[in-house]
Amino acid sequence: MPGDTSKPIQRSTVTVPWTEVSKAKKAEREERLARRPEWRLKTTVPPQQKDVSNHPPSELTPRELEIVRLDVTAIAEAIRTRQYGAVETLEAFCHVASIAQDLTNCLTEVFFGEGLLRAQELDRYLEETGQVVGPLHGVPVSIKDHILVKGHDTASGYIAWAGRTIAEKDAVVVDILRRAGAVIYVKTANPQTLLSIETNNNIYGRTLNAFNRSLTPGGSSGGESALIAMHGSPLGIGTDIGGSIRIPAAYMGLYGLKGSVGRLPHAGLMGSHDGMDAIVGALGPLATSARDLALFCRVMSQYEPWLVEPPLIEIPWRQDIVDGDGIPDKLSIAILWDDGVVTPHPPILDALKRTQDALTAAGHEVIAWEPIDHQEAWDLITKLYFLDGGEEYREVLKNEPLVPQTEWIMSQVPNGGKPYSVAEIFKLNLEREAFRAKIAAHWNATRTRTTSGRYVDAVLSPAAATLAPPHDTTRWWGYTSYWNLMDYSAVVFPAGRFHATGYKSVTLPGGVVHTGEPRNDTEHFIRAQWDPQTYDNAPVGLQVVGKRLNEERLLGVLRRVEEAIATYHDP
Amino acid sequence: MPGDTSKPIQRSTVTVPWTEVSKAKKAEREERLARRPEWRLKTTVPPQQKDVSNHPPSELTPRELEIVRLDVTAIAEAIRTRQYGAVETLEAFCHVASIAQDLTNCLTEVFFGEGLLRAQELDRYLEETGQVVGPLHGVPVSIKDHILVKGHDTASGYIAWAGRTIAEKDAVVVDILRRAGAVIYVKTANPQTLLSIETNNNIYGRTLNAFNRSLTPGGSSGGESALIAMHGSPLGIGTDIGGSIRIPAAYMGLYGLKGSVGRLPHAGLMGSHDGMDAIVGALGPLATSARDLALFCRVMSQYEPWLVEPPLIEIPWRQDIVDGDGIPDKLSIAILWDDGVVTPHPPILDALKRTQDALTAAGHEVIAWEPIDHQEAWDLITKLYFLDGGEEYREVLKNEPLVPQTEWIMSQVPNGGKPYSVAEIFKLNLEREAFRAKIAAHWNATRTRTTSGRYVDAVLSPAAATLAPPHDTTRWWGYTSYWNLMDYSAVVFPAGRFHATGYKSVTLPGGVVHTGEPRNDTEHFIRAQWDPQTYDNAPVGLQVVGKRLNEERLLGVLRRVEEAIATYHDP
Repeated sequence: MPGDTSKPIQRSTVTVPWTEVSKAKKAEREERLARRPEWRLKTTVPPQQKDVSNHPPSELTPRELEIVRLDVTAIAEAIRTRQYGAVETLEAFCHVASIAQDLTNCLTEVFFGEGLLRAQELDRYLEETGQVVGPLHGVPVSIKDHILVKGHDTASGYIAWAGRTIAEKDAVVVDILRRAGAVIYVKTANPQTLLSIETNNNIYGRTLNAFNRSLTPGGSSGGESALIAMHGSPLGIGTDIGGSIRIPAAYMGLYGLKGSVGRLPHAGLMGSHDGMDAIVGALGPLATSARDLALFCRVMSQYEPWLVEPPLIEIPWRQDIVDGDGIPDKLSIAILWDDGVVTPHPPILDALKRTQDALTAAGHEVIAWEPIDHQEAWDLITKLYFLDGGEEYREVLKNEPLVPQTEWIMSQVPNGGKPYSVAEIFKLNLEREAFRAKIAAHWNATRTRTTSGRYVDAVLSPAAATLAPPHDTTRWWGYTSYWNLMDYSAVVFPAGRFHATGYKSVTLPGGVVHTGEPRNDTEHFIRAQWDPQTYDNAPVGLQVVGKRLNEERLLGVLRRVEEAIATYHDP
Repeated sequence: MPGDTSKPIQRSTVTVPWTEVSKAKKAEREERLARRPEWRLKTTVPPQQKDVSNHPPSELTPRELEIVRLDVTAIAEAIRTRQYGAVETLEAFCHVASIAQDLTNCLTEVFFGEGLLRAQELDRYLEETGQVVGPLHGVPVSIKDHILVKGHDTASGYIAWAGRTIAEKDAVVVDILRRAGAVIYVKTANPQTLLSIETNNNIYGRTLNAFNRSLTPGGSSGGESALIAMHGSPLGIGTDIGGSIRIPAAYMGLYGLKGSVGRLPHAGLMGSHDGMDAIVGALGPLATSARDLALFCRVMSQYEPWLVEPPLIEIPWRQDIVDGDGIPDKLSIAILWDDGVVTPHPPILDALKRTQDALTAAGHEVIAWEPIDHQEAWDLITKLYFLDGGEEYREVLKNEPLVPQTEWIMSQVPNGGKPYSVAEIFKLNLEREAFRAKIAAHWNATRTRTTSGRYVDAVLSPAAATLAPPHDTTRWWGYTSYWNLMDYSAVVFPAGRFHATGYKSVTLPGGVVHTGEPRNDTEHFIRAQWDPQTYDNAPVGLQVVGKRLNEERLLGVLRRVEEAIATYHDP
């Protein structure tokens, strides 16, 4: 954590078997949950039952259900106007979070009691003063495990860190959330290494997708996506260095924003490769509405985090742009149908097609995005991920087994597992900059293909080549990591639910996707994986990509896109 | 050069002695200058004559003198209104540049003819259309040697590169300057390694300070400062990773702006350590007025360089802030009198004191800046400069001798001259971030010491511990490099001229500077160097420092500071 002296020094001094560490952490979590037995899952749900998404509703009171189905914007307003109290709001979310944990294993640190104390304070404050403490007064917020929350462990999916990483202070984002009135009550699971888009670690095991428990909720912010999709939290804080906000958002039918590096607070995170400059992750929100993404950004900006976190760029949030100022009435959108490496599965292509039709029907212009260098981008970003040849991972993991997705990512380690030299690192940085300049020019050149003569306002793209896949089968993150390499802003939005029964894919424009022999082993694997039954009930999500540090514009474009979809009726 | 494929590949295949390379480059330059003998120095000036600053005036026509004494803002206006033509403007500057070269050895590549062709085109365009091509129509601009100018060498002070680095395209800054109508006609000297704040290399030898030729004009943008101070160019483009814009500006009585990284174009530079992320230089203007610094930034922003250079941050220039919008009527300024490492020489303290008095008289608030960790900052930044242990310098310099300032900087190489490992680099990056967070907090904490309750608007500081020192004697850049480590915006402005005859230093407030035994060898050396005669006729410059990416605010504050100075009369 840059600039933070509170980070515990990590030492690999595990003296007990990893299984004991896991047992102790799980027991601690169970003990915390058991304090409120009335919030636990009441129904008996057999482990083999795939769809458990209807369980929270069935066990909630109507008022609880009413509360947890609100987005953050509505919750904040309801509390401010005293329609609900902060305590009852938090209790409703704690109830669902407890059930969500029982069904999907999404939580790590549980501190309902601490949250309730704060909620009581907030209720009292509002009652006594008539004022809210800030724009998130009383809003429950969940936090991904590797983000520091004062007084709680920051195991971050590592056995070696478990119980040894009690935060002495809050991450900047948590500090601002609290000052804005939010109530922090749970932390959520992330996978071993964090460099994974599923969620599985040796401390807690695997997190499941409530819509179909044989599928992953995505990762690395998969505890968040699993929890929020079940309405166990209205807002979660994730991080994304290759897709770790966008993938879980897409797999769980949520909204997720990955801004450019430097736009949102990032200090106070634990994880490997701390101090790495070559490629940096971004922190961002997962939520149930697009407006909540903007609200989160607005609140962060309001507290001027750049004053305490030097890498942040002082660009105050421009809500007027989100609300439409400067966004063209007629958008020009480029669709990335196929990245040249792995053709997306049919339901994703269907969603792109439907969105294209909706955009066109609303008078917007749609052109094809010509994909370039997607495999090269992956090869380069993995080098940047692993400048140290994987040394730090091997060290921290030496006393625990690798989970399958860690095995897979370690198979991608370049340079024979050896660290790069300083001269090699400089060269890789230049390759990264050359890549960025090339793709930026490619984007600018869309000017020559739009009727407006403007370059495209956004790229509409899959978030992944598949819907949420079966556990341990992820093989391709290129649809998201490409934009990390570019440091472009990107947002995921929900685009329906997939139902296997009676499924028929739509007809695509000719030539937009590859239909011949698989172009590589990855495509071979992923194509072979396609079977409607496998993905039954999985949410569909798509990605919209904007230019660097243009988060407001991106959300302004998303708004127009969603308006087009909302007013569109399939012919 | 990030993202630029035109950079020639450097090979250390020098097959002739370095002296021959130097001879050839000097002969080429001489041949270019000799084409216009009417512009050469007419007077015989003995080598031992120190002050040569009055020579251009004595050899110019009144109209030439009138032209070259204008700043860029005035030149652009005069050409636009057809008071002067672009050709006659350029000819006047070429005349002075030629004399300046003869007296101070400040030029490298000379291409007056190419410039004049462009000036003719511009005159014709204006005559035919009544329009200017852009805001710098007809303005001559000089370019530091290591910045790519299409068709010209980019030797950058290295024998190994000389003649092998003909640019195939312009740097982004040069491209924008041309599109804005500027005329490029010379490149200017920079020192061997560029990591020097004097200007000396084995190709051309040493650049001299026209006010006192026994002194350096500063570096690494010392060709620029030497040239502009003699009015051989109204605007020069420099670069600064430790003081290389600000020091030469201060030593030559000019204005120089070092913005934060990412604010101004930086692609298309040659130099060692290309691809280094840990500490990055900034490109910026040297000029004869503060308003020209803003004009340069405004023009750069107008052409949206972030569209072609991905590392740039899209923050459009806010001239309204420069002009006073949001700048408090009563500033709070902190003065850094002494950085705890080297007490500045008396003329610099005098200038701080006079500025303090002027600020106070104008109703502004002045407090003392408490210096922290200035030696530590130097120790850290030298590690970041030399992540490779100096390998790249040793390689490129293997066939030429080290100039004295290279010898000195190489004595600062850390880690026993060995490259750092990846793990060590990550740790150094974290140290840098911890430093930045600490100093940012220190700045924010000035809130508790101002009457306004705001943190200080700027820090007023020496630019260096001395006025322009005798050649080869520079030992301390801490007053500038500290702010590179912070990535804060900083500007230098002229604060008079020093005259040894009858010099008496002013009385300082007690306790603001160290007066006891020297605290270290550097201070010992610099204190022993003080003798008014040594620095006779040297300009005095001071530095104003603002927060990161707040260049408009910094220039807005400078404006108020200069107004206070202008209206102040010594009691």
